[in-house]
Amino acid sequence: MWDVGIIGATGYTGTVLVSSLLTHPDVKISLITSNTYKGKKISDIFPAFRGVFEGMLEPTAEKHAGKCDVYFLCLPHGSAMETAQALYNGKAVIVDLSADFRFEDVGLYEKTYIPHRAKELLPQAVFGLPELYRNKIKDSHLIGNPGCYPTSAILGLYPLLKEQMLSGDIFIDSKSGVSGAGREAKTGSLFCEVSEGFKAYNVGVHRHEPEIQKEVSKYSDAKIFFVPHLLPMNRGILTTVYGRLKEQLSTKEVLALYKTTYFGEPFVRVLDEGLYPDTRFVRFSNYCDIGLKVLDDGRIVIISAIDNLVKGASGQAVQNMNIILGLDETKGLRQIPQYP
Amino acid sequence: MWDVGIIGATGYTGTVLVSSLLTHPDVKISLITSNTYKGKKISDIFPAFRGVFEGMLEPTAEKHAGKCDVYFLCLPHGSAMETAQALYNGKAVIVDLSADFRFEDVGLYEKTYIPHRAKELLPQAVFGLPELYRNKIKDSHLIGNPGCYPTSAILGLYPLLKEQMLSGDIFIDSKSGVSGAGREAKTGSLFCEVSEGFKAYNVGVHRHEPEIQKEVSKYSDAKIFFVPHLLPMNRGILTTVYGRLKEQLSTKEVLALYKTTYFGEPFVRVLDEGLYPDTRFVRFSNYCDIGLKVLDDGRIVIISAIDNLVKGASGQAVQNMNIILGLDETKGLRQIPQYP
Amino acid sequence: MWDVGIIGATGYTGTVLVSSLLTHPDVKISLITSNTYKGKKISDIFPAFRGVFEGMLEPTAEKHAGKCDVYFLCLPHGSAMETAQALYNGKAVIVDLSADFRFEDVGLYEKTYIPHRAKELLPQAVFGLPELYRNKIKDSHLIGNPGCYPTSAILGLYPLLKEQMLSGDIFIDSKSGVSGAGREAKTGSLFCEVSEGFKAYNVGVHRHEPEIQKEVSKYSDAKIFFVPHLLPMNRGILTTVYGRLKEQLSTKEVLALYKTTYFGEPFVRVLDEGLYPDTRFVRFSNYCDIGLKVLDDGRIVIISAIDNLVKGASGQAVQNMNIILGLDETKGLRQIPQYP
Amino acid sequence: MWDVGIIGATGYTGTVLVSSLLTHPDVKISLITSNTYKGKKISDIFPAFRGVFEGMLEPTAEKHAGKCDVYFLCLPHGSAMETAQALYNGKAVIVDLSADFRFEDVGLYEKTYIPHRAKELLPQAVFGLPELYRNKIKDSHLIGNPGCYPTSAILGLYPLLKEQMLSGDIFIDSKSGVSGAGREAKTGSLFCEVSEGFKAYNVGVHRHEPEIQKEVSKYSDAKIFFVPHLLPMNRGILTTVYGRLKEQLSTKEVLALYKTTYFGEPFVRVLDEGLYPDTRFVRFSNYCDIGLKVLDDGRIVIISAIDNLVKGASGQAVQNMNIILGLDETKGLRQIPQYP
Repeated sequence: MWDVGIIGATGYTGTVLVSSLLTHPDVKISLITSNTYKGKKISDIFPAFRGVFEGMLEPTAEKHAGKCDVYFLCLPHGSAMETAQALYNGKAVIVDLSADFRFEDVGLYEKTYIPHRAKELLPQAVFGLPELYRNKIKDSHLIGNPGCYPTSAILGLYPLLKEQMLSGDIFIDSKSGVSGAGREAKTGSLFCEVSEGFKAYNVGVHRHEPEIQKEVSKYSDAKIFFVPHLLPMNRGILTTVYGRLKEQLSTKEVLALYKTTYFGEPFVRVLDEGLYPDTRFVRFSNYCDIGLKVLDDGRIVIISAIDNLVKGASGQAVQNMNIILGLDETKGLRQIPQYP
Repeated sequence: MWDVGIIGATGYTGTVLVSSLLTHPDVKISLITSNTYKGKKISDIFPAFRGVFEGMLEPTAEKHAGKCDVYFLCLPHGSAMETAQALYNGKAVIVDLSADFRFEDVGLYEKTYIPHRAKELLPQAVFGLPELYRNKIKDSHLIGNPGCYPTSAILGLYPLLKEQMLSGDIFIDSKSGVSGAGREAKTGSLFCEVSEGFKAYNVGVHRHEPEIQKEVSKYSDAKIFFVPHLLPMNRGILTTVYGRLKEQLSTKEVLALYKTTYFGEPFVRVLDEGLYPDTRFVRFSNYCDIGLKVLDDGRIVIISAIDNLVKGASGQAVQNMNIILGLDETKGLRQIPQYP
Repeated sequence: MWDVGIIGATGYTGTVLVSSLLTHPDVKISLITSNTYKGKKISDIFPAFRGVFEGMLEPTAEKHAGKCDVYFLCLPHGSAMETAQALYNGKAVIVDLSADFRFEDVGLYEKTYIPHRAKELLPQAVFGLPELYRNKIKDSHLIGNPGCYPTSAILGLYPLLKEQMLSGDIFIDSKSGVSGAGREAKTGSLFCEVSEGFKAYNVGVHRHEPEIQKEVSKYSDAKIFFVPHLLPMNRGILTTVYGRLKEQLSTKEVLALYKTTYFGEPFVRVLDEGLYPDTRFVRFSNYCDIGLKVLDDGRIVIISAIDNLVKGASGQAVQNMNIILGLDETKGLRQIPQYP
Repeated sequence: MWDVGIIGATGYTGTVLVSSLLTHPDVKISLITSNTYKGKKISDIFPAFRGVFEGMLEPTAEKHAGKCDVYFLCLPHGSAMETAQALYNGKAVIVDLSADFRFEDVGLYEKTYIPHRAKELLPQAVFGLPELYRNKIKDSHLIGNPGCYPTSAILGLYPLLKEQMLSGDIFIDSKSGVSGAGREAKTGSLFCEVSEGFKAYNVGVHRHEPEIQKEVSKYSDAKIFFVPHLLPMNRGILTTVYGRLKEQLSTKEVLALYKTTYFGEPFVRVLDEGLYPDTRFVRFSNYCDIGLKVLDDGRIVIISAIDNLVKGASGQAVQNMNIILGLDETKGLRQIPQYP
């Protein structure tokens, strides 16, 4: 039984983590923290947990170092790097859900975010996308858990990138449910500001663009153009990627490549020809569904769907933990997508 | 391992049943039927099940008698009674989710619905509300699984009814998500006919009124007045009951009665004073949350919340099966409420 | 042409007022204020107004006294009373959308809200529900515009109250869209905290209860019990009132009373027997739709629907202004309910 | 005063037309038809119209020829062409909201839809997009009112197309509210099948692709790739177009071109640099809002938003009628976007 701590447990990723870990047979949640709600039971904040898990919220503090085998950091960037510094000792596993340890290139991080104050840890960190980096993850104790948009975009592109089969521009049109904006009280996240509306935002300047680009650049010199949109719903990301194949292949042939690439992956489902994902069918689960179509002229559209809070955040974090601890990767992640 | 069949597996209650039973360690889904989709895989109809459960849908037919240990009937009333006749043999457990076996009084059933064509089975049937009838359920092989509104209303009223503490009129103001109307293509269930709107319907003439009344009448001669409303959301029922206590008690005293009555019940959560249920906090789970307040003049409001497809239908059906088979009542029903 | 000022124009009631007044042939919006957004164009805050109305937002200040013929105060209570003091001169019309001038009984106001700091104005103020107080409104220059819940509840009850036809308890079960909570950034109004959920709140302690009670008490010694609920939608209030008639009448007879009472009212639509309101069919309009049913035993349910931001706030405010200025009451209020 | 008939008045486009025309000072709705609801009052089907407009629905029939000055056809394709044949006489204005008269090339129509049975009328028909074809529309009596997606996509592309400034592939990623699917009872339009989900559909095979392509082809040999998505909301289309400029220009320069092109257009609003449209801010209005951004490498994204039922259907139809009748183009179309 592994002792697990969730630092910052009262945001949406925190509560989804708790929910997932409660179904995990090999871990025990022995620490949950929240500076906002310290001293309260988590079930007072999230009454869904009444009678299920009524752990007390402690303040987020350095003194928690050494207590747990695994720490999940559900904190804003900046705050996460300092907490990681306090908790990292090479033995405990740290899975950071912020952006602080996602960038190998500290310059790129600092250009996109803020000055990095835990640079000495960066060499230890691995970008936690299991389908691409499982082997590296296995040997790491510090995971930069990928962003939600990057997870959906990179999983959609990876088989073609890996084989260097794309040519020219890549356009990434992503649409996210509102929970991606977190639980902070902001006017833009109010029900009446979101419901019955749809818009693009941060066009060409979203912080997830460099995170996607850095992965794309490992295989290709293609420049991506990333446009995120806000959906009037709680959960789910659908990413529609437009590009062009270097040589003409059929939809069937490209799907075969995707099925081969993701063969054995417990959480990627490649759909058959003519089928496309719907966020409803991955909701509350760790699945990433992918469908695609190739046109006669070599253009291709790839569509991927995830639950932004699960495969796009907390579920992937648990998957990373399982890999590092040598556990079955699906433990704590067997939730079947729920609909309606 | 018990063999389980789901007759009519492609409505919302059918798919929720499948989802619940897949997490049940002691059962095997060995039969799923659908006349509409026979010959197809259930995962083609509900892509959420891709890679999870891809069983083939068979036609609904008599020949399935004797195949399973447990049958769940997710059929319209009328059709359910005939299927029950074909399948009932005193050995297999039949849990009928329609109204056909909910009424001890066949006259009341026939006044509310249609002529009953399986009257010989009625003496075997038990109204499957575990919190009230667990002992009877244990010994039965034919369960009339309660309606969604009745489940929420009766659980809200039961402790006071049992103690005969109510006096005078009872008003039951219920609000249900759209999934209560089923998956049939009806104009009234279209997104654009429901979204951004709220209304009462079937005022004083809803078929669940007699179902609630018959239970109330076992303890009291109070007449209920039931007004259902349609909520612009997928899942959940909130029922607000208004009544009057025979003698003045405090909110605390009445809550104590509720906590005593439901002590040990795995799926009823009585909230503390000042707290009231939200359907969000029972969503996707088998919980019924109850809160209440007593006024200085003896009036009382009791508020209960369930997921209409789980405790209001498929979850309760699994709970009934567990009771009859002598299993832990929570097996297959440990889903934690999911939010957002 | 009357000069009109909107003090606090960037909340939801402010923007709906602007929208309504722009269609009014006899008024000119010559002042809009906002302390939060002063110096900006209203069309920068609400891009719906681009190219339609691009007025500059001024700070809310005393210096605006004497500038306009009519002032609408869309401010929090407390702040409204002080602004009214600064602007009131007996000539300009002041319609206050806060609670500050709704209570004839200052003690009741202070018990419900805060100490009143403009008591000297209270004798001038009229509760601005035109269907009940049109004559008083005509002669007033200071209107306490009714709350949204009270408007729906009182219009639903008024014909029976006036005739003293009710006996015993009155239960008022109201359900409101989220815009009723205003545009302030609060966790409880976030999309993810509201969508796909439904709950009661402020059970028996909502500030609109005394506002309704004071009107009921003018005709009856009945005690109301008011339970508001939060709907996962933007706009609309549906109020379901439960009571008992002193003597047995038919639904038809009571509907006849309602049709007589509201005969000639431009904004009340009494529905025929068997029909009940839906908030969708009054959305964006100043209508109040009312339907009702009487049971055999004398119990009655009355259901009323309004758009909380129109008849429940800004539309009613314009109606009050029209009455005072001697204009056709429907000017600026001819919006047809829009659906879907 | 012009006599206007609405053939097929009980779908969503029909009801929006009625609503718009009721605010038009120069027309009288003298005929509304519906085969489904004939003999009923339209206010019985759409209670929003109670007390506002209670016209009787007549059957859709040939006998209505000659009765009206203007006919709006809100019928399925195929049915519309035959009705047009029955009503067309060169004098009455016919605005057909179906696809039947949108294609100059009958072969393309027949490839996309069905055999055309009113070919003799095609030479009279004009594609009713006022911003492109106002002069032709003026002289026509038969309008093929554009599809909703094409309206949003073509208005977004037109200034660049006209100046032949685009090079290479064009990707059109469109997202529509559910009302685009009409009021027919289909499983796919049910609340529970749409709410809390998002998907692409008809990828690369939607019938609006050839309609957009034929307009693009008038200026360019670019091939478009059109991917429509279904939004969990009632109204609105947001179209995100990706392309590449032939020569590098700044965002400001391209916006200047757009502002020049649409100068004087009453219903196109070109947003300033850094601003992008939101469907909420055009909802219920005839506006098309457009924003765009050019990247350093010449790539461009253009984002346009309309209300699919207004500028995308009924509003544009009224605009076309106004042009033909020589009326102010904004009559009946002055609805301010409503939010929340």
